[in-house]
Amino acid sequence: MNARPIGEFTIVSTEGTARVGRLETAHGAFSTPAFMPVGTQGTVKGVTPRDLKELGAEIVLSNTYHLHVRPGDELIRDLGGLHKFMGWDGPILTDSGGFQVFSLSKLRKISDEAVVFQSHVDGAQIVFTPEKVIRIQENLGVDIMMVLDECAPHDASRAEVEAAVIRTSKWAKQSLLARARPESLAFGIIQGGMHHDLRERSLAEICALGFDGHAIGGLSVGEPIPLMRELVERFAGELPSEKPRYLMGVGTPQDIVHAVKHGIDMFDCVMPTRSARFGRLFTGSGHINIRNAEHRRSDEPILAGCDCYTCQNFSRAYLSHLIHVNEVLGIQLATLHNLRFYERLMADIRHSITEKTFGTFSAKYLS
Amino acid sequence: MNARPIGEFTIVSTEGTARVGRLETAHGAFSTPAFMPVGTQGTVKGVTPRDLKELGAEIVLSNTYHLHVRPGDELIRDLGGLHKFMGWDGPILTDSGGFQVFSLSKLRKISDEAVVFQSHVDGAQIVFTPEKVIRIQENLGVDIMMVLDECAPHDASRAEVEAAVIRTSKWAKQSLLARARPESLAFGIIQGGMHHDLRERSLAEICALGFDGHAIGGLSVGEPIPLMRELVERFAGELPSEKPRYLMGVGTPQDIVHAVKHGIDMFDCVMPTRSARFGRLFTGSGHINIRNAEHRRSDEPILAGCDCYTCQNFSRAYLSHLIHVNEVLGIQLATLHNLRFYERLMADIRHSITEKTFGTFSAKYLS
Repeated sequence: MNARPIGEFTIVSTEGTARVGRLETAHGAFSTPAFMPVGTQGTVKGVTPRDLKELGAEIVLSNTYHLHVRPGDELIRDLGGLHKFMGWDGPILTDSGGFQVFSLSKLRKISDEAVVFQSHVDGAQIVFTPEKVIRIQENLGVDIMMVLDECAPHDASRAEVEAAVIRTSKWAKQSLLARARPESLAFGIIQGGMHHDLRERSLAEICALGFDGHAIGGLSVGEPIPLMRELVERFAGELPSEKPRYLMGVGTPQDIVHAVKHGIDMFDCVMPTRSARFGRLFTGSGHINIRNAEHRRSDEPILAGCDCYTCQNFSRAYLSHLIHVNEVLGIQLATLHNLRFYERLMADIRHSITEKTFGTFSAKYLS
Repeated sequence: MNARPIGEFTIVSTEGTARVGRLETAHGAFSTPAFMPVGTQGTVKGVTPRDLKELGAEIVLSNTYHLHVRPGDELIRDLGGLHKFMGWDGPILTDSGGFQVFSLSKLRKISDEAVVFQSHVDGAQIVFTPEKVIRIQENLGVDIMMVLDECAPHDASRAEVEAAVIRTSKWAKQSLLARARPESLAFGIIQGGMHHDLRERSLAEICALGFDGHAIGGLSVGEPIPLMRELVERFAGELPSEKPRYLMGVGTPQDIVHAVKHGIDMFDCVMPTRSARFGRLFTGSGHINIRNAEHRRSDEPILAGCDCYTCQNFSRAYLSHLIHVNEVLGIQLATLHNLRFYERLMADIRHSITEKTFGTFSAKYLS
């Protein structure tokens, strides 16, 4: 399917520690820094695949845990895989489900062997082992699999975080051994909470295993933004530079620009899609809330100069109307705008690194 | 904007009493027999204007009453009219609001002068006169205005229906006198319930007034289908043949084919859009309910051979999944299919009349 080998990561351009790259997958290559719209249940909420493509998304994220619960990864496998199922022929990355197990589920029991928990849908008992999580993702046929990790909560004790680091490394090794499908790349996940020495240890252990890419996990779990940024500044550059680096669950446009500056290549976040559903629409300077009365008579687009379908065709007044009368088109149009805003940001980032103007771009963006 | 005069109705082809025509409006011409997707609140639920165009809709219906209540017709006028507001540059017809007043509203008081009722949103008192309903639609800047009529319920007494006929005729005259915007065509509405003599009277009175088109109103209000069809058979052909004939609120694909056979040119119905939201999807033979267990593992499209975006890209299993996990994309894709099904039916009807095969087509469809 590809002239270049699957998993090849080419760094096309750099400026300082920021870089523009291209990762080959079984469903084509995508450019980094990349933002992955979140399609938890096999759909980016309210957006068709063709609209996703039009707004510039090259890769989407879906979720192992959710798809395992409903409709089931074996069903998706039997129907030809997740790409065919959801009508998206570009790259797909699936989150391992570790984060959902630790955030959504009740009554979980964790051991070195497995995590046992109840489905958030019907309470059925589910057992996740590292091997099973790989098997699920291979059933889905995704391009990038995330391994099962243990994501300690923000307020966990040092001992708990250390135990999670040890277990995450053990599971990472098992995950690699369990792989059976070479078209599905595997990324390792660094844990260690806010403890620099534990992060260092996790990073050294995970990065020694030969993954196709590496992720910083366990952030965006409620910690203050300065703490998150401090960890990115300290550790992004220590991840192997010849492999893609992924900062999971981050973040705001500013967080993304900051992380790119320190060498991160991949991002995912529910912010553009979730915010859209609450009427929060991104503009050049933060966001507006379309529910506010000031927009009810405004014939302006959400963002002057924006090239998204929504801004090219509809006023704030129309969006305000749709949201007030609970018309689903309001959410669709808001989501298209916010996702296009994020994808254009990524394109601007890539362009400015190529042009060696990212220093100015990021300084302005972060001021 | 048009080479041909606004309001010109050209009959392009006939077969028996069925006809193919073309009506010129200020926003371009559309072909008849036409189905108008229902966009009550200034949006066809879950469908962007460009998707509407792609699936073959040439004209959409919106609602005077709903837009008057929210966001207000004066606001829409100030923002450049309904076409600009909702991003639809083709023809728009607005229902007068009469049907909503009589079906949605509480505490209405009707006199020869006006109908006084409470908003279904906030209970505010609203007064509709024939003149006001014209003014609202002219504020909206629509291409076809429906006049205010009195729609007697299915179980009304003969005396009540007669009173409604008299009032509807009186209001029709007032409506025509109130017109100030020649770009907005005006259609009259025939009432008379299930009483043939009252229908005859209403038809004679309304059709003498010089409207740009004529509608049969007061059907699809709960009467048995054979009664509705009997009235269509009896009266469709009596509406002036040189003007478009519109059967309001109808109906199923079979009802539409039946009415076309008897000379009707225009239709609107919530069926394709509302059914989609309940998981009922049209096929060649009736419909399926995508919620049923039998579809959960089906890799078939909703309808083999259907050229809609949904059938071209997604399986029943995927739609079943989306509906089961309450993903809004499920409603979007279901709506696209059902509307395309209707629009393709209309195209097939027009084509078969042109080819003089509508007799066979309709016999097969109605068997």
